[in-house]
Amino acid sequence: MTVKVALLGCGNVGSQVARILLEQSDELAARVGAPLELTGIAVRNPDAARDVELPREIFTTDAHALVDGADIVIELIGGLEPAGEYIERALRRGASVVTGNKALLAARLPELTEAAEAGGAQLLYEAAVAGAIPILRPIRESLAGDDITKVMGIVNGTTNYILDAMDTSGAQFDQALADAQRLGYAEADPTADVEGHDAAAKAALLASLAFHTTFALENVHCEGITSISAEDVAAAEDAGMVIKLLAIAERGTDSAGDEGISVRVHPTLLPREHPLAAVRGAFNAVFVEAENAGELMFYGQGAGGAPTASAVMGDVVSIGRTRATQAAGGSVAEPQPRPSRPLGIADAATSYALSLDVSDETGVLAEIAGIVARHGVSIETMRQTASAEGGAGSARLRIITHVGREAALAATVADIEQLPVVKAVSSVVRVEGK
Amino acid sequence: MTVKVALLGCGNVGSQVARILLEQSDELAARVGAPLELTGIAVRNPDAARDVELPREIFTTDAHALVDGADIVIELIGGLEPAGEYIERALRRGASVVTGNKALLAARLPELTEAAEAGGAQLLYEAAVAGAIPILRPIRESLAGDDITKVMGIVNGTTNYILDAMDTSGAQFDQALADAQRLGYAEADPTADVEGHDAAAKAALLASLAFHTTFALENVHCEGITSISAEDVAAAEDAGMVIKLLAIAERGTDSAGDEGISVRVHPTLLPREHPLAAVRGAFNAVFVEAENAGELMFYGQGAGGAPTASAVMGDVVSIGRTRATQAAGGSVAEPQPRPSRPLGIADAATSYALSLDVSDETGVLAEIAGIVARHGVSIETMRQTASAEGGAGSARLRIITHVGREAALAATVADIEQLPVVKAVSSVVRVEGK
Repeated sequence: MTVKVALLGCGNVGSQVARILLEQSDELAARVGAPLELTGIAVRNPDAARDVELPREIFTTDAHALVDGADIVIELIGGLEPAGEYIERALRRGASVVTGNKALLAARLPELTEAAEAGGAQLLYEAAVAGAIPILRPIRESLAGDDITKVMGIVNGTTNYILDAMDTSGAQFDQALADAQRLGYAEADPTADVEGHDAAAKAALLASLAFHTTFALENVHCEGITSISAEDVAAAEDAGMVIKLLAIAERGTDSAGDEGISVRVHPTLLPREHPLAAVRGAFNAVFVEAENAGELMFYGQGAGGAPTASAVMGDVVSIGRTRATQAAGGSVAEPQPRPSRPLGIADAATSYALSLDVSDETGVLAEIAGIVARHGVSIETMRQTASAEGGAGSARLRIITHVGREAALAATVADIEQLPVVKAVSSVVRVEGK
Repeated sequence: MTVKVALLGCGNVGSQVARILLEQSDELAARVGAPLELTGIAVRNPDAARDVELPREIFTTDAHALVDGADIVIELIGGLEPAGEYIERALRRGASVVTGNKALLAARLPELTEAAEAGGAQLLYEAAVAGAIPILRPIRESLAGDDITKVMGIVNGTTNYILDAMDTSGAQFDQALADAQRLGYAEADPTADVEGHDAAAKAALLASLAFHTTFALENVHCEGITSISAEDVAAAEDAGMVIKLLAIAERGTDSAGDEGISVRVHPTLLPREHPLAAVRGAFNAVFVEAENAGELMFYGQGAGGAPTASAVMGDVVSIGRTRATQAAGGSVAEPQPRPSRPLGIADAATSYALSLDVSDETGVLAEIAGIVARHGVSIETMRQTASAEGGAGSARLRIITHVGREAALAATVADIEQLPVVKAVSSVVRVEGK
């Protein structure tokens, strides 16, 4: 049994999806329980330049024929039509669909859900909400036994990049936007991002997911960031806060006390200690408050070819597993784990931060640096300060190494300890995340 | 069709699971597609005091009989036996199992997986890895089409609480531990937490999940935080870093160049800008690096009755859905979304940060405060500074309100703008996360 996969569109994300399907086919087959066969890629112009080199014969202009022969259709064309027609056609004839098309989902989710129902097919769209960040599945499944009360998301990388740049550099909006455009973080026409329209479509999807409903885009209140000034950002900093463009969906009541759901996108002040305040640059994050789970946050890249392709492929493998499972007679077994080889701590790749108390005399630094070099370890920073702990004539030396093998780092420390000029190795802590 | 649920154990987490199953039965039935029936709770002493009031007749001491009549068994007894025997018995006869028992899973995951396979049942353990944080499903499913290269987790709330307290207050380890014990963040015997044993069991599970394998606990290198001093913490701060106890699992090579997996728990320096550095108090987080998705982080509460119960219930609903779906003939349809009522922006509950340029004369503050109060809005902070923008005789006034209905806040601003003493409302930004 083979799972036939049709790809519609081959832009930034589509070309990465094609690359993964072709390059990782053995690995994917093991996880799915059956091979995934990329039967073709429908594009308008098969001869256009692509980000990834792909065989010419895999391209077709006949999307309908491709859709009709597929078990799984991956729609990455974008826009309302013809994407919507292809998806509905696939679902009604029982092929499952993976899409990252937030505009289409925000406009037509109820009809597409109905088409999936009618065809007994699955419609998954992890890539549509916050790019690579797993959010659809955690909300739909992991939190299925809880009640979400509020969702707040940084779901547009362009505006977060601009606001973060204004916060860091004190620049005005126009300047930060121009820089973002120059660096490729904002489009030539930035309207959809800076006016909040992109975030609003994602807010509608988040609200639908979080509250087990379908929330229409037209009911999302939307304000962008164009009116935010350097003075607003400075005032926020002064108050211990930061300005973020948030997509917010929460349960509430109207003035008559009747329950409802409020969904809105607007610039928002957050205390600097809030987990969302630490989301920098073009990163995205979704913060969730649930009745029992309390506060949760999901953080990652919200856009980009490879990250978004990762989310698409997660959906493809999930559907593929279901298909393979059904074909095998409906067992719910997980794919079998494979053996692995544990590496001992000596083989860990890490870096060390050392504090040493040494004699305050000439030649000590050179002596220590010599031992470090002999073990093939390299030093990132070395700082010497006067030391109270070591007593008179002592200096405190702090060394941070580059990444090396633990065995070499440990041997280095052992040799340093033997040096007569070294009074004590007062601490050794490993470093990550540099 | 009813899904019969047996609960083993009724401690901190178990009593919350029982509460949710009993209180939320209608909501859960809608999500599962069939009612979940709590058939009983097996405990040693049915008359013991519980966190939650539960009907006496629901308790039993006969765990075997309870297991044998169940579709889903929730194991929250903890420890190796008899928990392991109950789980294996349930799985082999085809009942799916939800557990949060990390010690048992770290010791016996391969056998239990095999038992699930043999019985055609599911074994889910979202609660075992990082409490309420959805991590099992994102890694197993959302990232199923990607390759994880490294996982770093803050997976023990007690040690993170202690290290965070040392970072904030400059306290020594013993003092911070004593405070944590007094506040209920550390147990009377803190060994399993502070020596890293709890984190090591979770590290083995994370490694198994991330690398599609089974990684044995005995191969995890484990160091605790008892040797971390206030001086280490101060030196870290001085270098722009913070010390965290991390569980790390990554692909690597040994000195011969052969591939393997390194899993370790040790105190680790992280730059303050790293997303894991912002994880404060008893919170947990898991940071994942994947080939295509790049950097991801999952953040939330790693322990506690209700948060952990949320993770357990997510697994229960997921299994229940599969059962209900299979009983209905194998359709893969999602539960139907329900209608919801959108609230307009006027009904959003939010708070405002206002900047006003006002005449620098007596009575202005009282006049503005009076308008605010008339709209039923209350002020959290009000600050006056000299203003350059407003010209001579001007002051800049910054007001942050408490949470109120948007309509009242907007009306307040409109009235303030009409005041002769107000020269300009220079900015209005909403505030969240206070």
